[in-house]
Amino acid sequence: MMNRTEKPVSIVSGGAGFIATNLIGRLLDEGRTVVAIDNFSRGSRAHLQNFSANSALHIVEADLADRAQCMKTFEFTNMQGQIGEVWHLAANSDIPAGVANPDVDHRDTFLTTFELLRAMRAFEVREMHFASSSAIYGDLGNVALHEAIGPLFPISNYGAMKLASEAQASAAAESHLDRVSLFRFPNVVGVPATHGVILDFIRKLKLSPETLQVLGDGSQQKAYLHVSDLVDAMLLVRAQTRFDKVTPINIGPVDEGVKVRWIAEQVVARVNPKARIVFGEGNKGWVGDVPRFHYSTGKIQALGWSPLLGSESAVLRAIDEIATQEGA
Amino acid sequence: MMNRTEKPVSIVSGGAGFIATNLIGRLLDEGRTVVAIDNFSRGSRAHLQNFSANSALHIVEADLADRAQCMKTFEFTNMQGQIGEVWHLAANSDIPAGVANPDVDHRDTFLTTFELLRAMRAFEVREMHFASSSAIYGDLGNVALHEAIGPLFPISNYGAMKLASEAQASAAAESHLDRVSLFRFPNVVGVPATHGVILDFIRKLKLSPETLQVLGDGSQQKAYLHVSDLVDAMLLVRAQTRFDKVTPINIGPVDEGVKVRWIAEQVVARVNPKARIVFGEGNKGWVGDVPRFHYSTGKIQALGWSPLLGSESAVLRAIDEIATQEGA
Repeated sequence: MMNRTEKPVSIVSGGAGFIATNLIGRLLDEGRTVVAIDNFSRGSRAHLQNFSANSALHIVEADLADRAQCMKTFEFTNMQGQIGEVWHLAANSDIPAGVANPDVDHRDTFLTTFELLRAMRAFEVREMHFASSSAIYGDLGNVALHEAIGPLFPISNYGAMKLASEAQASAAAESHLDRVSLFRFPNVVGVPATHGVILDFIRKLKLSPETLQVLGDGSQQKAYLHVSDLVDAMLLVRAQTRFDKVTPINIGPVDEGVKVRWIAEQVVARVNPKARIVFGEGNKGWVGDVPRFHYSTGKIQALGWSPLLGSESAVLRAIDEIATQEGA
Repeated sequence: MMNRTEKPVSIVSGGAGFIATNLIGRLLDEGRTVVAIDNFSRGSRAHLQNFSANSALHIVEADLADRAQCMKTFEFTNMQGQIGEVWHLAANSDIPAGVANPDVDHRDTFLTTFELLRAMRAFEVREMHFASSSAIYGDLGNVALHEAIGPLFPISNYGAMKLASEAQASAAAESHLDRVSLFRFPNVVGVPATHGVILDFIRKLKLSPETLQVLGDGSQQKAYLHVSDLVDAMLLVRAQTRFDKVTPINIGPVDEGVKVRWIAEQVVARVNPKARIVFGEGNKGWVGDVPRFHYSTGKIQALGWSPLLGSESAVLRAIDEIATQEGA
């Protein structure tokens, strides 16, 4: 077929989103043809403008939770070349929105997975790399969260539909996939920022420069990874050949993370040092927010990976990047 | 309100199915009003005919995966009295059908859970008892399967959608439920039989009395529980007040189970001792069939429960009951 590439084509769902746009640059550097699929509900074409001159990138507007649109996208991609892998990064990223209305996570997080797997079966695509989440672990207290821990009782619909997606991919692996990576992401920071605590704080400060209102008492502590380290880790895992068919893998910093209070202070220092920080009550920001956890990353460290930036450095760099993005 | 009962009303989804019809008798014995909901795709009105004279039982035909029908059912139930609990037993029970078409498990197993939880939130019903499954554990080899084990990689869409249902219920517990029981069922036998290996064998023998064709080599070993013991266990767990909000609990025999080969022999002995048994190859009957597992039931035994019938006795009794049901 004319114009059909020799190298397998990569599909990236949620292709105009935060993490995907960082990943896509790396896939294009490999010489791959990439089909980035997004419904542009949260992602933006502007995120991909760096690659607009690259004819190996195809941007498709489609809602993957819609069966007909998903199948059409695969038909289009299949015309570019053999589909070698699906990077599934499409999801609802707004946890409180999903708590308010479970349909959001069901549709944007689970049904996208469900329909992608169905299309992969139809088009005999056997490799999926899935952006799962530490949210599948729920709130297990002070236990170290390693990949084989249980029980898995997520406390948000977001976490529930990430776990449901893992489960569906696991069942698909038994019948029609060769391999599935289940990347359990920590909180990831960087640009283009579309959501998250740093962006929230910066936008709040832009709206009311005198005061930064923080949900909760600021004592929530979380580990943060910079998106550049995350993408390195994902590509390293994909390069492994000795893993099981279904490979869950925690990706995260090796440190214990930083407190929301500290992030608020750093944002204020960068954006408006005169602003006053006002804290709320309780150590949860919203229903489904896990106050603190201990993330075990021994499995990915055993591959020789460690993040270039710890939680503090990642957050500081991201504050600077996002402040620039927001003109703050 | 007139005719509105003082006692909280019980909703039983999949109310005309195998396990539900055994449970409903016990709930009626407690003096409860019961609303049994079924779409009659697999369940049958005939299963409930023993209770047809009991005005405390309401049978509603509805597809709970359909939002409007689900909400309407809750409106009806709420007119009978305050809804105290939901026993969620509706599900696809045909594992191979769900492997062939993932929509079946998504709709009948997951969406029923999803819509029930949504309606429970709207009607402020805070107690769910859910028929989960040992299938959520996937194939972990010879490891003892206790309630807190991981990782959870189901190998059938059936198991995936049971796990997805657990996850959604867990998230709901964080925001609007007081308690959720997650009963992880083993293979359950008894009448009214609607599916399962014993019914399959008996029907096959009725169709061709000379030969019983068995999928796989017959070496698959599984534990079986009689439905009477299962219902005892569920009611015992429901009576506990000291459990966590989300309580996973394995229910099963304490023995190691029986082999398919032995079941085939017992069916032949009961139905047609002259029939020849022909085995297939491999130790899996179908994609998604877990060949052997070790089920840990210490948690429910600690409540003082143990089954009256072990796997052998349960299967033998069920063979007799199902043969009678089938006129074989």
